[in-house]
Amino acid sequence: MKQYVFGIDVGGTSIKCGLFESDGTILEKWEIITRKQEQGKHVLTDVADSILAMIEKRDLKKEEIIGVGIDVPGPVQADGTVDGAVNIGWGKKDIVGELQEQTGLKVKAGNDANVAALGEMWKGGGQGFNDLLMVTLGTGVGGGVIVNGKIVTGAHGAGGEIGHGCVNPSDEEACNCGNHGCLEQYASATGLVRMAKKAIDASSEDSVLMGAEVTAKAIFDAYKANDVLAGQIVERFAETLGNALATYCCVVDPGVIVIGGGVSKAGQVLVDVVKKYFVRDAFPSCKNTDIVLAQLGNDAGVYGAAKLVIDER
Amino acid sequence: MKQYVFGIDVGGTSIKCGLFESDGTILEKWEIITRKQEQGKHVLTDVADSILAMIEKRDLKKEEIIGVGIDVPGPVQADGTVDGAVNIGWGKKDIVGELQEQTGLKVKAGNDANVAALGEMWKGGGQGFNDLLMVTLGTGVGGGVIVNGKIVTGAHGAGGEIGHGCVNPSDEEACNCGNHGCLEQYASATGLVRMAKKAIDASSEDSVLMGAEVTAKAIFDAYKANDVLAGQIVERFAETLGNALATYCCVVDPGVIVIGGGVSKAGQVLVDVVKKYFVRDAFPSCKNTDIVLAQLGNDAGVYGAAKLVIDER
Repeated sequence: MKQYVFGIDVGGTSIKCGLFESDGTILEKWEIITRKQEQGKHVLTDVADSILAMIEKRDLKKEEIIGVGIDVPGPVQADGTVDGAVNIGWGKKDIVGELQEQTGLKVKAGNDANVAALGEMWKGGGQGFNDLLMVTLGTGVGGGVIVNGKIVTGAHGAGGEIGHGCVNPSDEEACNCGNHGCLEQYASATGLVRMAKKAIDASSEDSVLMGAEVTAKAIFDAYKANDVLAGQIVERFAETLGNALATYCCVVDPGVIVIGGGVSKAGQVLVDVVKKYFVRDAFPSCKNTDIVLAQLGNDAGVYGAAKLVIDER
Repeated sequence: MKQYVFGIDVGGTSIKCGLFESDGTILEKWEIITRKQEQGKHVLTDVADSILAMIEKRDLKKEEIIGVGIDVPGPVQADGTVDGAVNIGWGKKDIVGELQEQTGLKVKAGNDANVAALGEMWKGGGQGFNDLLMVTLGTGVGGGVIVNGKIVTGAHGAGGEIGHGCVNPSDEEACNCGNHGCLEQYASATGLVRMAKKAIDASSEDSVLMGAEVTAKAIFDAYKANDVLAGQIVERFAETLGNALATYCCVVDPGVIVIGGGVSKAGQVLVDVVKKYFVRDAFPSCKNTDIVLAQLGNDAGVYGAAKLVIDER
């Protein structure tokens, strides 16, 4: 008997949905809008309706369906309760209980960054590994840690919050989390632009970055074109990130590090420059740890969510 | 039927042995000498003989014995092979296979620092927790990480090598591991003395540390007596350690941090000063993570080793 599983990735703008076979073959992929009105009270109902409609469309039987995996942008407790997801409008919410009731299916929930790491391990850049660290370089820096095939959620839901390693406590600017000098302030797209603006202001050197709109992409494009100022900015970014990743490795010693998020679109040059500092600072037995680019892009969430409930069988 | 378990902690000078009931009650505790001659070829035989003698002395039946847990000062692979333990004289060695053959009992092996963390979780400072980070401040800085009750060994046996988080890559002196600026160079007994000697040389201020033998104990004693220079040294130690522990928490988010090793004999004042910087730098949901002193001292290894094989039942 073929078995099916749903993977649902809840974001602040849209909800990505996937119907998979249990081996990871994706059969359908679709999106619905995230209705954040009235503290997001319609979100789970919309998800349930969409799942039930797909079951009807494909004429699936309940006993063929393993369940629904769902990830949300917030900390998820072991019992399936989310402790607030600001971007959706949720306070404390029993997402597993509610979605189970509305679908009649088994549900398993996780944090979006953690679940994306699981997805990359299953079908992306981390295939073949059982211990993985993923870092997502986007507006912020997210992350996920997998040990022995399982997501490390942590005692307070903060497992994998590796964007908030404190790399420079004397930074005068505060991070979104309230602390000073988090990795996120140096290695996110926002952090890169922050560093670049400071460097441009302080530099007397000519650079293609001057007078143009400064974005993470523009910085890496200039770096690839051997712009000196861009080189300094990227080296600082890479030293901060490479050093932090090396430090994280002495805690959990993953078999592979997967780098994803918008900034990682810079490609292999990003991996190469980060690796230079990683190798310098990593504990000897970790120096050869693979660093690879994520492969699933925005689909990591739906894959990981599906895997979440498959692993629970 | 009562069940029994052996916990064996192999060190470079002596081998600590314990016979436990399965609930953790210790019945016998003894030591044998570590015969390191001939690449430590007698060590496992000595351990096996000692276990068999105890079984005979107490007239235990094989079916009453859960097994033997053993820890060694080196990285242990998942299959029970140690990849070299310099202090014992071992190269690559199948300790589980050999000890099983010589005792006829089930054997489970682990790295000494990791196993000590398990011991502290079972019967020491970390009781009641399932996720724990232990840091041992001795000649070096060792560590162990427990997630969901299990030791994190890592892909290269470097899980919990938290003494080698790279906190200051521009340090001119090299760490024993070959890198520059490891936590161990600041937070071990040796590291404290290193910092103190530099501070003494650079200071014009009067201090009880001048002209005396500088040890970790002397530094903390002077700190307790409000010596200004000792205060500066301890604050630097505490900022480095507190910041590193905060960073480790955003990776695995333990429920408790246990501080052990010789330096921790300074007591609660050490916890207090480290906590000040930990709270400053930790991710908001981790700021309340308990930091406690280890309770088992040199017995953490035998307790943890026993627990290792109990968990395997």
